[in-house]
Amino acid sequence: MKNRKLTKRPRKSAVSRKVGLSPGSLVHIGTIKTESTKVDIIQYKNEIFDEIENISVDKIPDFLSTDKNTWIRVTGLQDTKTIGEICAIFNIHPLVIEDILNTIHRPKVDYLENYIFLSFKTLHNDSAEYNLKSDQVSLLLFKNILITFHENPLPIYEPIIERMQLPTGRLRTRGVDYLFYALIDVIVDNYYVTIETTGDYIDNIEDSIFEYPSTDTLESIQLVKKDLLYIKKCVFPLREALNTLIKIDTDLIEQQQIRYLTDVYDHLMQVYENIESFRDLNAGLKDIYLSSLSNKMNQIMKLLTVISTIFIPLTFIVGLYGMNFTNMPEIEWKYGYLFVWIVMVTTTIFMLRWFIKKNWLSISKKREKEPIKMNTNPMP
Amino acid sequence: MKNRKLTKRPRKSAVSRKVGLSPGSLVHIGTIKTESTKVDIIQYKNEIFDEIENISVDKIPDFLSTDKNTWIRVTGLQDTKTIGEICAIFNIHPLVIEDILNTIHRPKVDYLENYIFLSFKTLHNDSAEYNLKSDQVSLLLFKNILITFHENPLPIYEPIIERMQLPTGRLRTRGVDYLFYALIDVIVDNYYVTIETTGDYIDNIEDSIFEYPSTDTLESIQLVKKDLLYIKKCVFPLREALNTLIKIDTDLIEQQQIRYLTDVYDHLMQVYENIESFRDLNAGLKDIYLSSLSNKMNQIMKLLTVISTIFIPLTFIVGLYGMNFTNMPEIEWKYGYLFVWIVMVTTTIFMLRWFIKKNWLSISKKREKEPIKMNTNPMP
Amino acid sequence: MKNRKLTKRPRKSAVSRKVGLSPGSLVHIGTIKTESTKVDIIQYKNEIFDEIENISVDKIPDFLSTDKNTWIRVTGLQDTKTIGEICAIFNIHPLVIEDILNTIHRPKVDYLENYIFLSFKTLHNDSAEYNLKSDQVSLLLFKNILITFHENPLPIYEPIIERMQLPTGRLRTRGVDYLFYALIDVIVDNYYVTIETTGDYIDNIEDSIFEYPSTDTLESIQLVKKDLLYIKKCVFPLREALNTLIKIDTDLIEQQQIRYLTDVYDHLMQVYENIESFRDLNAGLKDIYLSSLSNKMNQIMKLLTVISTIFIPLTFIVGLYGMNFTNMPEIEWKYGYLFVWIVMVTTTIFMLRWFIKKNWLSISKKREKEPIKMNTNPMP
Amino acid sequence: MKNRKLTKRPRKSAVSRKVGLSPGSLVHIGTIKTESTKVDIIQYKNEIFDEIENISVDKIPDFLSTDKNTWIRVTGLQDTKTIGEICAIFNIHPLVIEDILNTIHRPKVDYLENYIFLSFKTLHNDSAEYNLKSDQVSLLLFKNILITFHENPLPIYEPIIERMQLPTGRLRTRGVDYLFYALIDVIVDNYYVTIETTGDYIDNIEDSIFEYPSTDTLESIQLVKKDLLYIKKCVFPLREALNTLIKIDTDLIEQQQIRYLTDVYDHLMQVYENIESFRDLNAGLKDIYLSSLSNKMNQIMKLLTVISTIFIPLTFIVGLYGMNFTNMPEIEWKYGYLFVWIVMVTTTIFMLRWFIKKNWLSISKKREKEPIKMNTNPMP
Amino acid sequence: MKNRKLTKRPRKSAVSRKVGLSPGSLVHIGTIKTESTKVDIIQYKNEIFDEIENISVDKIPDFLSTDKNTWIRVTGLQDTKTIGEICAIFNIHPLVIEDILNTIHRPKVDYLENYIFLSFKTLHNDSAEYNLKSDQVSLLLFKNILITFHENPLPIYEPIIERMQLPTGRLRTRGVDYLFYALIDVIVDNYYVTIETTGDYIDNIEDSIFEYPSTDTLESIQLVKKDLLYIKKCVFPLREALNTLIKIDTDLIEQQQIRYLTDVYDHLMQVYENIESFRDLNAGLKDIYLSSLSNKMNQIMKLLTVISTIFIPLTFIVGLYGMNFTNMPEIEWKYGYLFVWIVMVTTTIFMLRWFIKKNWLSISKKREKEPIKMNTNPMP
Repeated sequence: MKNRKLTKRPRKSAVSRKVGLSPGSLVHIGTIKTESTKVDIIQYKNEIFDEIENISVDKIPDFLSTDKNTWIRVTGLQDTKTIGEICAIFNIHPLVIEDILNTIHRPKVDYLENYIFLSFKTLHNDSAEYNLKSDQVSLLLFKNILITFHENPLPIYEPIIERMQLPTGRLRTRGVDYLFYALIDVIVDNYYVTIETTGDYIDNIEDSIFEYPSTDTLESIQLVKKDLLYIKKCVFPLREALNTLIKIDTDLIEQQQIRYLTDVYDHLMQVYENIESFRDLNAGLKDIYLSSLSNKMNQIMKLLTVISTIFIPLTFIVGLYGMNFTNMPEIEWKYGYLFVWIVMVTTTIFMLRWFIKKNWLSISKKREKEPIKMNTNPMP
Repeated sequence: MKNRKLTKRPRKSAVSRKVGLSPGSLVHIGTIKTESTKVDIIQYKNEIFDEIENISVDKIPDFLSTDKNTWIRVTGLQDTKTIGEICAIFNIHPLVIEDILNTIHRPKVDYLENYIFLSFKTLHNDSAEYNLKSDQVSLLLFKNILITFHENPLPIYEPIIERMQLPTGRLRTRGVDYLFYALIDVIVDNYYVTIETTGDYIDNIEDSIFEYPSTDTLESIQLVKKDLLYIKKCVFPLREALNTLIKIDTDLIEQQQIRYLTDVYDHLMQVYENIESFRDLNAGLKDIYLSSLSNKMNQIMKLLTVISTIFIPLTFIVGLYGMNFTNMPEIEWKYGYLFVWIVMVTTTIFMLRWFIKKNWLSISKKREKEPIKMNTNPMP
Repeated sequence: MKNRKLTKRPRKSAVSRKVGLSPGSLVHIGTIKTESTKVDIIQYKNEIFDEIENISVDKIPDFLSTDKNTWIRVTGLQDTKTIGEICAIFNIHPLVIEDILNTIHRPKVDYLENYIFLSFKTLHNDSAEYNLKSDQVSLLLFKNILITFHENPLPIYEPIIERMQLPTGRLRTRGVDYLFYALIDVIVDNYYVTIETTGDYIDNIEDSIFEYPSTDTLESIQLVKKDLLYIKKCVFPLREALNTLIKIDTDLIEQQQIRYLTDVYDHLMQVYENIESFRDLNAGLKDIYLSSLSNKMNQIMKLLTVISTIFIPLTFIVGLYGMNFTNMPEIEWKYGYLFVWIVMVTTTIFMLRWFIKKNWLSISKKREKEPIKMNTNPMP
Repeated sequence: MKNRKLTKRPRKSAVSRKVGLSPGSLVHIGTIKTESTKVDIIQYKNEIFDEIENISVDKIPDFLSTDKNTWIRVTGLQDTKTIGEICAIFNIHPLVIEDILNTIHRPKVDYLENYIFLSFKTLHNDSAEYNLKSDQVSLLLFKNILITFHENPLPIYEPIIERMQLPTGRLRTRGVDYLFYALIDVIVDNYYVTIETTGDYIDNIEDSIFEYPSTDTLESIQLVKKDLLYIKKCVFPLREALNTLIKIDTDLIEQQQIRYLTDVYDHLMQVYENIESFRDLNAGLKDIYLSSLSNKMNQIMKLLTVISTIFIPLTFIVGLYGMNFTNMPEIEWKYGYLFVWIVMVTTTIFMLRWFIKKNWLSISKKREKEPIKMNTNPMP
Repeated sequence: MKNRKLTKRPRKSAVSRKVGLSPGSLVHIGTIKTESTKVDIIQYKNEIFDEIENISVDKIPDFLSTDKNTWIRVTGLQDTKTIGEICAIFNIHPLVIEDILNTIHRPKVDYLENYIFLSFKTLHNDSAEYNLKSDQVSLLLFKNILITFHENPLPIYEPIIERMQLPTGRLRTRGVDYLFYALIDVIVDNYYVTIETTGDYIDNIEDSIFEYPSTDTLESIQLVKKDLLYIKKCVFPLREALNTLIKIDTDLIEQQQIRYLTDVYDHLMQVYENIESFRDLNAGLKDIYLSSLSNKMNQIMKLLTVISTIFIPLTFIVGLYGMNFTNMPEIEWKYGYLFVWIVMVTTTIFMLRWFIKKNWLSISKKREKEPIKMNTNPMP
């Protein structure tokens, strides 16, 4: 279960590498996910749609002297030199390059002279079981040009590329600002799916907690807590960033696209509320777990008490007549032994009845429940 | 008890169906509640009141070339094609259609060129016991036309339709904006009723918790927690939406209706405060439950301790005189046996007195209570 | 203790009666407290002071054609027809009438064309012990006329009426807006007194919790929690309402009265802070109660452990020499019995010393305390 | 420990005395701390410095017809008549007089026509141990005149008076607004000292909690909780009041003094943050206490279990051979007794080894600790 | 572990020393870290770079009559006279000097006529294990001159000085405002590293908590809680201060540097969010610890109950036949002894099976776990 940790907190050494360096120094921070950097270009406008994969960096400027819409997709951040060269072509601010390379950065938006910079996280579940993963995506929106940087190839962008191939789709007829929106939208929609996976996992914990409370349950609860904290740290700043984006006074994003971005913002709000609900429910599970422990303890103690209460007095009685006094009249009685048995059986029956009355013997808890009834009438 | 879950969290697969699709693609998200889509129309103005049920979509435009007030009621969202056709007549924005069909959307308001879109949830208790249910309602307010979309027939709208049949009622003499208000108002009033049901259920839990604390109690508490979280997610965004609605600068809603909408907003505030109170009380119940467990444990341990403390020493004594030493003077005494009995009875009485003094034998807890008295004078 | 519940949550049926009705339908919501509706009028201005009790509704207009200040006091809300007639005289908005009759409404202020409507709650302790009660008061402030509606006769208004009889008092020389302030002020001052009663009750719980922790204590804590939640729901919206009132741009309230209303607002702030403190302290009591339970459990277990640890080994020893082996040399020893006694007494003394060292025998907890000392110097 | 309560919540009767009275009625609310009211005057300007003690109220006007700076110090609020006369000289608003006399009022500032009114609390530790005390101070700042009201003589003002006697000090050369600042500053600085005392007390509780957890510890934690709540109620509104004071547009406070008041505001912010930290740490102590109880319980139960687990089987064995069957072959064996001893010793050794392996015998908890090691490199 | 306390809360006496003194009195508050005060100067502009160490205070003015950028580094705050002389040269406001010397002040920014004052904390881990330390840094930014005051030599500034020696670096070509930024940036970057150390320490606690829960664990959790509270008190006000700094309308900071300061602000936001996450996780650890205790208790009680439940009835049986009645038929039976053995073995087997079925004997907890499975499909 330990291997399912989402919170890829960087090793301290990784972070400390950057301390004291000039801002804009090209240092990649985060886990190395791909070896090389790959650049793909899609150019489109109305009827036109060209997709060229694996372009070398020095060829990029050839594609720019055109009025076609251009999407430059950069995959893999490990090769800082290549990233630096690409950014040099577009004259990107050193602090922005730093943010592109730093994959543990919080989501942010920035509006510079001639482009908008947006950086945020993707979220997906990596296995058939529960194992959240996260990547960083950076988008640079110029007039007619959109550059995207990701750590890994993003399968989630496939349906978008497919939709771009339809000549009459909005993705083809509108500018890169609509593509910019579509890329954000698909990732935010996926947030929803991902936290529902977490929600399902919480439901599974809940189902198991009443049956088999164990230390494992608690580890799962703590794991979910960490995941939700991480997701919250992805979603909350992105919400802020989108809010800023909507209010930026720029001609890079056409007015009619603003409504779409607002829609994404609303989805983020819902994701955020769901995170808060899940955090709340998860905390509730912890309490249920603790009380399950107490309940089990009560069951154990009841058993011990029942056994002790019945047998300790009996053991006293039989010990009594094991004494070796020379003058013990009962010993000599003809029915002394029978008499002792009668006393013991009577005591035991009495005690059992008392325990049954107090429901202590209902190990199956059947009679302990008193259903919580409602005396409400059916609704009008 | 498990079947009483309100939180109809969609299956992940349902949500993921939409990821990567173009916005406005007609996909129904949520539980299928009705098979077909049914369209009813009410037209009214002063003396006029016409109700036509089960209209086919292509007939709708016939009803629109008039200055009468028109309420188009669409029930059932499963048939996305029909919904799409209806929306096409009124030229509805693709994002709005998406929201109408997505029944797990959070409440929202949107003001487009010539209409206002409001989407929110109804809440009602579905059985004689406690079982909350929720539906989504979407309202489109045009000049003279109100279109409503619901997943199910809404019995809660019946009294409104009855009131519309009264020729002199406000519902007849005022425009569709008043009807718009009336439909919201009746649902929000019902929120109040619904959370009172939850409040009654909390009271029932509280009554049972002091008598029969069981794992079931905890499950009920967790259930209420989930319900309140869900209701909060319905009410909070609706409050926001209404606040936006009141401030929209539009001629679709007449100024005199604003006061009514403000009144609904106030009711929502009260509902919201009650939710917070109930959440607080519900959390308090959890603590009471945990301490009830501790209390029961104390009772059990007291019993065990009393039995052990009395009989273990006695068993030692009788064991003592069961030893087979050849040289044990007491064994030979004439009143040795009697002497041992006297010692044992004395010890037992002493211990019982001590336990009574410490109130450990008051299983009925009668003497343990010390009433919490107030030395306050009567109020002036 | 159960009968001391403050939170008069209406029965669901009471609330649901209103759902679907037209706003302004005259329905009384809440507990019926008085049978009939009684109208009293006080007219005053400088030297003039007339008090007429029990006026019939149709006589009211006779008193209005004058420049004297008029206070119309309406007691009892059950007779909705009479209330409706009174409101008709003054042309009150249907939503305002609805709020006057709905006694479970949250406090609110509303400014209509020619009058201000303020509705809030009184709080008082109903018995020598602790039993909070609440009533709703509605005030309608016109130019020269103040109308007040209450569910019950309010003894708290007596001193105000007495002060009005003094010819030179501010209440006589100023307008109805000052009377309006005075009526609010006296109720808010009483809030302070009432929550001090709750504070005293919390102190009583605290005193008893260290001595006699019982399930009753927990019920009292939960009761106080409910009461404080209710009081908070009275105070918080009233604070908002007063804040709105102070900022309303109206000539119904003279500028010099604003300072007085601000003073009331400050008192409400203090009441609010006290509520928060009490909630905090009350939550602390719950923790103390839980740890008292744990402490008692520790005491019980210590006793059990001491008894068991001393007697179980002894019982083993005496059992040992109760064996019937033919070849047990110790049995035959002359001082075997004495030897066993020496072993047993030595073991017991050793164990008792060990328990005393660990303070387990200090049932009175005397030596367990180590005072928490401060090494602070006296202040300069 | 009970006598160390800071929260001087007024008796309900004290508060209720005022309900229904006209605002401005001279009623002293709070504890009576001094018998009589004493008025002292200091007049100063550059070279001039006159201190006159114990002035009768009718002499005060004689000191006012001058351009010297005048500080009127009023000590003791019990004599409401004298306070009323003093206030009459300066034409103080009735609500302000009410606030001066009500010593349980929350801190506030008010700007009237020609003076500023500020009322707040002093805090100090009253004994060598931990015992917080609080007084109310009210300041009235006129042009050239400062009037201060306190319940007790304030030794904390002594160093200020000494500094005033230095002819070249800022206190002498600047106006009464600087003195006004200096008086606030010295009290706020003392807040800092006082809450550090509370901090030290929390440290002491923490040190003792790991060693001697007792019910006393919990009482101390609850005491600190109450104190911190009280201090918060002093500091928070004063912060608000100072913020208002800084923004008041008045010529009573010169511009150059604003920076000083801002500095006091910053100090208050720090005090406030420390209070929050202490509240957090104090709540943490409660958790430590509860877990200490659980830990002790574990220790107790381990001992009981070890003793029982070892001796109960042994007792069974010796009981076995105490049976009186005529046909028990072992009984007759020559080495039967020896054999039983070997079985018992072997069992015991086996069990002891098992308990040692599980660390249950490490009463000193020595081997139970596994140090929490860091594999971090030294910082660059 | 006790020696690892970060929270260097000043001794109360240190703080109280200042109460009642005139503001601006030169009093050093905090721990004495260096004996003497050392002044170093760096002058630079484009090609020029001069570093002069250990300058006497009266030489400072010689360096100022120039248009070169000047960085005056003052190390050691204990020698208040020297600090006072330096501040006199630059005509620093008394309140600012007070803040420079008071090392327990909260971070703040202040804009005076011709300079900006910024004061905040550094954070670093002092040892190979976990031991946070903190120093105060004050910066005075004039036109062309930057003065920094620190308690200790700051090794963290070394890389900056190295970068200043590169003739073409931004640090050389831009003004002191860029240096000002660089000094803040390097410290804030280090915050990040430091709290990651805390994060690693929390991970270590988490790893150990499931294995070896002990009182030490709780002490570590409380230690981390204190550290995070302290760090929060460093970061939160600095965030505010930077926000103010960004908005100050001044020509001391060039417009192009604002973007860099905004970047630092963003980093602080991230640090702040991480602190909140760590606080949350740390609180979660406390709950895990408490439930580990309960779990261990359950294990202990199960063992005790198993042993007791098996042996107490057996002991009764053997006691039974140890009775000395003359008339006990079983005693005489030939196979009586065998019969008793059969009864005892059967009973024991029955009980063991029952315990195995209830998983009470699975000390290794192997069968108690039921894995929490997900029935989710792989992601699209």
